[in-house]
Amino acid sequence: MTHTRPLLAIDWGTSSLRGARLSDTGQVLESREYPRGILTVPAGQFEAVLHEFFGDWLQVPNALCLISGMAGSRQGWQEAPYCPCPAGFSELGQHLLWLQPGRIALVPGLSCLGADALNTPDVMRGEEVQIFGALQKAGRDSATLVLPGTHSKWVQVQGGRVMQFQTFMTGEVFALMCQHSILGKTMDLKGAFDPAVFLQGIDQSQQHGSALHHLFAVRTLGLFERLSAAQLPSYLSGLLIGEELRHQATSAHAEPVIVIGSEALTMRYTLALQHLRIPCQSHGAEASWAGLYALASSCDPS
Amino acid sequence: MTHTRPLLAIDWGTSSLRGARLSDTGQVLESREYPRGILTVPAGQFEAVLHEFFGDWLQVPNALCLISGMAGSRQGWQEAPYCPCPAGFSELGQHLLWLQPGRIALVPGLSCLGADALNTPDVMRGEEVQIFGALQKAGRDSATLVLPGTHSKWVQVQGGRVMQFQTFMTGEVFALMCQHSILGKTMDLKGAFDPAVFLQGIDQSQQHGSALHHLFAVRTLGLFERLSAAQLPSYLSGLLIGEELRHQATSAHAEPVIVIGSEALTMRYTLALQHLRIPCQSHGAEASWAGLYALASSCDPS
Repeated sequence: MTHTRPLLAIDWGTSSLRGARLSDTGQVLESREYPRGILTVPAGQFEAVLHEFFGDWLQVPNALCLISGMAGSRQGWQEAPYCPCPAGFSELGQHLLWLQPGRIALVPGLSCLGADALNTPDVMRGEEVQIFGALQKAGRDSATLVLPGTHSKWVQVQGGRVMQFQTFMTGEVFALMCQHSILGKTMDLKGAFDPAVFLQGIDQSQQHGSALHHLFAVRTLGLFERLSAAQLPSYLSGLLIGEELRHQATSAHAEPVIVIGSEALTMRYTLALQHLRIPCQSHGAEASWAGLYALASSCDPS
Repeated sequence: MTHTRPLLAIDWGTSSLRGARLSDTGQVLESREYPRGILTVPAGQFEAVLHEFFGDWLQVPNALCLISGMAGSRQGWQEAPYCPCPAGFSELGQHLLWLQPGRIALVPGLSCLGADALNTPDVMRGEEVQIFGALQKAGRDSATLVLPGTHSKWVQVQGGRVMQFQTFMTGEVFALMCQHSILGKTMDLKGAFDPAVFLQGIDQSQQHGSALHHLFAVRTLGLFERLSAAQLPSYLSGLLIGEELRHQATSAHAEPVIVIGSEALTMRYTLALQHLRIPCQSHGAEASWAGLYALASSCDPS
């Protein structure tokens, strides 16, 4: 797949605004990042902010601008209704919300229904283009992927379509525990990451018992001086990432799990997965650009 | 067991200071409660605060004053080292920390080591006297007890001694989710308790999957208008209490679980336990007074 128009790929999330200018072969010519997530943008000001930071790129003749992420949420520029799973490029392309026909579009997020008794809905926005980008780079059309973060996503892809996914509030619970809980009072949050202690937390989380109980050990292991204040955040991180991992149907014999995210997070997940003998490979957040390029090529094969 | 000295029973916790004056047969003659938990008391001021609120009682001739709770912690009046389990009245009595010999004593908390690979320590302060008080009232010397709260305790007692217990951060996680998480943004925290929705949360928590995933449904069930903003706190409460319950080795054939706590909380736990067909009976927080009276009788059989 190639694409003959210049592409402006934008990932506009809750806390940051990232963009890349891509050549017609998908090469990143330039990228920019600003702390101007949708929470900083007053209603009605999204177009102005986009022009403020990317106005020069938007003047490129015949350019196509695709915007993924929370900009398409109810709190964003305009609501792009979720595209229901199973969904691949063609479903995403059909659900683009054109802000300027043929020129600027919002990429919708995905929704799915859980297999539980309540058929609990789940949602993502922005991760879908990272998923498709990472699959392109890995040359695979079926995989289990994990996108760690505030709200981690575990995703099952078959035949190039997202079939099902689950969100885990791992990153948010970690932040709440550090910043607002009784555990935070005894932790030294500036302590360097300690891989051995992190893996102790991973092992503990795989044992019988609830995370609600395991968490309290962050307090008592400090109280009884079994771990130092600087080690406790690594232990807490291991407990929570381990709780997320123990509910995954992965095995040592499966194809590698694809991990997509920042270097700091993919390092922790890779460490944990390898420790549990689950093969994996990682990709950075620039998977967004590959995904938006592939989407552009697929929905606009000019 | 009877006790021939007047008893001043004090439960001095993190956020409140409660006291009761008991007759020599253990009858509560008067009780008082103040929002003067240990967090409000500057170091060195504990004796003064005790006299400010209970000075008249302390003047009763020959009175014995027993103080349980966080007043005996490192951040309290003075540290009363934890009494290791197994522990009953006699061990607690031997570990009293006398502030004024024969007159005012701090009751120590309990510690135990978990059966997990790390032998993770666990601790309680204040709950131990409630446990012994509730057992006296129930006329039992062996039981499984639960003390719901910020940090719920599940306790195994045999032959009048606490053998083992586990802490769950259920109440604190509920508060953090309501006050500081993304879930709080869509919940109406003033919504009346909805028993049917609470039990939906209980049922969901018993299904396969991690609490870190189930929690996110509080957002999506609101987003897709499957539950109203006023119903979401009841659902969240059911998810978290259910997560705590699913890790208990209780069964429909066992002796009733003893639930000790405030009316609002024992109501929720009773509802959940009955729903899961686990027999239970409940006691109020005044179990503290019965426990301190029994301890006084046991350690000072004058």
